[in-house]
Amino acid sequence: MSLKASVGIVETKIATLGELVLESGAVIPLEIAYETYGELNSNKDNAILICHALSGDAHAAGYHVNAQKPGWWEDYIGPKKAFDTERYFIISSNVIGGCKGSSGPLTINPKTGKPYHSSFPFVSIADMVNAQKKLLDYLEIPRLHCVAGGSMGGMQALQWTVSYPNFMKKCIVLASTAEHSAQQIAFNEVGRQAIMSDPNWKDGDYGDNPPKKGLALARMVGHITYLSDESMREKFGRNPPRGNIKNSEFAVGSYLVYQGESFVDRFDANSYIYVTKALDHFSLGRGQELAKNLSVVECEFLIIAYSSDWLYPPYQSREIVKALEVNAIPVSFCEINFSKGHDSFLIYNPEQEHLIYHFLVSDASLE
Amino acid sequence: MSLKASVGIVETKIATLGELVLESGAVIPLEIAYETYGELNSNKDNAILICHALSGDAHAAGYHVNAQKPGWWEDYIGPKKAFDTERYFIISSNVIGGCKGSSGPLTINPKTGKPYHSSFPFVSIADMVNAQKKLLDYLEIPRLHCVAGGSMGGMQALQWTVSYPNFMKKCIVLASTAEHSAQQIAFNEVGRQAIMSDPNWKDGDYGDNPPKKGLALARMVGHITYLSDESMREKFGRNPPRGNIKNSEFAVGSYLVYQGESFVDRFDANSYIYVTKALDHFSLGRGQELAKNLSVVECEFLIIAYSSDWLYPPYQSREIVKALEVNAIPVSFCEINFSKGHDSFLIYNPEQEHLIYHFLVSDASLE
Repeated sequence: MSLKASVGIVETKIATLGELVLESGAVIPLEIAYETYGELNSNKDNAILICHALSGDAHAAGYHVNAQKPGWWEDYIGPKKAFDTERYFIISSNVIGGCKGSSGPLTINPKTGKPYHSSFPFVSIADMVNAQKKLLDYLEIPRLHCVAGGSMGGMQALQWTVSYPNFMKKCIVLASTAEHSAQQIAFNEVGRQAIMSDPNWKDGDYGDNPPKKGLALARMVGHITYLSDESMREKFGRNPPRGNIKNSEFAVGSYLVYQGESFVDRFDANSYIYVTKALDHFSLGRGQELAKNLSVVECEFLIIAYSSDWLYPPYQSREIVKALEVNAIPVSFCEINFSKGHDSFLIYNPEQEHLIYHFLVSDASLE
Repeated sequence: MSLKASVGIVETKIATLGELVLESGAVIPLEIAYETYGELNSNKDNAILICHALSGDAHAAGYHVNAQKPGWWEDYIGPKKAFDTERYFIISSNVIGGCKGSSGPLTINPKTGKPYHSSFPFVSIADMVNAQKKLLDYLEIPRLHCVAGGSMGGMQALQWTVSYPNFMKKCIVLASTAEHSAQQIAFNEVGRQAIMSDPNWKDGDYGDNPPKKGLALARMVGHITYLSDESMREKFGRNPPRGNIKNSEFAVGSYLVYQGESFVDRFDANSYIYVTKALDHFSLGRGQELAKNLSVVECEFLIIAYSSDWLYPPYQSREIVKALEVNAIPVSFCEINFSKGHDSFLIYNPEQEHLIYHFLVSDASLE
């Protein structure tokens, strides 16, 4: 964990932004939950947008009033941290399609006066980015110093550079990919099938009686893929569960059951389906197709992959690097040896801190 | 696929073998489903025992009357194949705890006249081996030329060499391990939790209304782990499903749903829990503990691992190799580059065929 200071008490705000036309043509009422840290300078050129992963939210740093736990990227956002709030104005917003304050299946459909639930239209990663752009317009940010994110956040960051190529100076993509492989789709598909197999699913119209068991199972499968063989061995080994926990004969089983059960209290099953579908359908292609899609890009890149990340293996990051290099777009790539699997980008490690910090302060070749 | 001839029409027989005392002290009525291929020679020294994996059965080779599909290891068992039925007498038996004819949760409890279901006692890999020993005694096999298996079959083969060290000349362990890691346990745990989350589970006493959805989910998770990133990419890529299949937006999703749904027609949910628990609890240890446990072994070994097998990674095979070498036990090790993931050992590849064939016919250092 970082020993540096926190940004302190923060709060999540909601911006009401009219309507958003999705790629599909569907129109949704747009609200975005967001937080900001640090101050926008007079030139308005020090803003950084942070994009979160599947189960993340706008609360990336600091503490909510009376909360014990800080935001999900506390180790990387704050005074003198990787995203230095003494230098930058950091904006973190919740994706649309989710369930943490931005428009999604829990939003009231203005035509019916009831929540959309499964009638909420499909949202893409590009739709998430377009919604974020509306937030930045609302906040009167003319251009970003950087857009950054890991995993699904990395996909959003990459999509930003394609959708709005003039809008940022730098882009940071951590533990991510330009498109999901069959294996990545498969793990998400099992999660969706678990939710839809729950008798409480009722085609998504479960109201106040959500498919908790199905969502818990989806989370359990997902959680295994976020860790590594090595990190699970270090943490659990073949130990029996501690205490009186009877739900498994192994510590790792009890941990997964606990993770699943606690997830259902903080995530909506429909949102899980919408967001995983956005992940699976996101595709900037591979090889020549990817190079062509990235040919419009104008910013410089930092790409970080983790050796132990078998869910988003480093070869997927290298494919992005190659496609950028083909286009003579400046890119720094680093594969970090860290045993924590896909979750590595969320956990404090000084290498990631230094790489991000120096990438953000440097005046590189584009200048 | 092997182009060599088949053993032809075969049938599964049932041996009724009295009672078996399990490691736990519990006693079960013992029946074993088995098949044999080839002929026992007059010296009775050409018998080979084949051990199957999680969802396998006694039907390893040839065709049942009117069946379209051959046994699960047809490519490796038959005339002039790896396990050459012109040279050897091959015995393949179904494990206890399963649901393919040997004693398990579907067996009638003589005390109640009804199936055991979840009251069937826990069985270990060593119990499976002890049951197989009773079958070999019944078949009047004084000693094995070889015991062989992949995955769970490899664990049985390894356990055989520890439980009955004088009883075999050779042992073949494919894509296996001396104990499950936390990650391997975790995947099985999610499968068990999926079954137990199904409202039809009823603590295992589901009678004629089994927890089909839970078992299907367990199979879907398992199936992903049996393939590789590369083999899934080759087979499915990011393609949409073919035809009118509406259960997924991706071919890989439809395939998994199909695999899950077809599995429930041929496997019992209680057996899935019993057999995966046997896998997870099996432990000959690692490092010095494994070397100590293998110090009693007297046969020679062929160990094969697959580069693309991320469920039973090659390092687990190398740990067995090291523990054997520490004890000066003859061992040949080969890591084969083959893209099919954990399932590689089930699929025809000439390297595996040649390695097994020549290992079986050779007179090695023990002679």
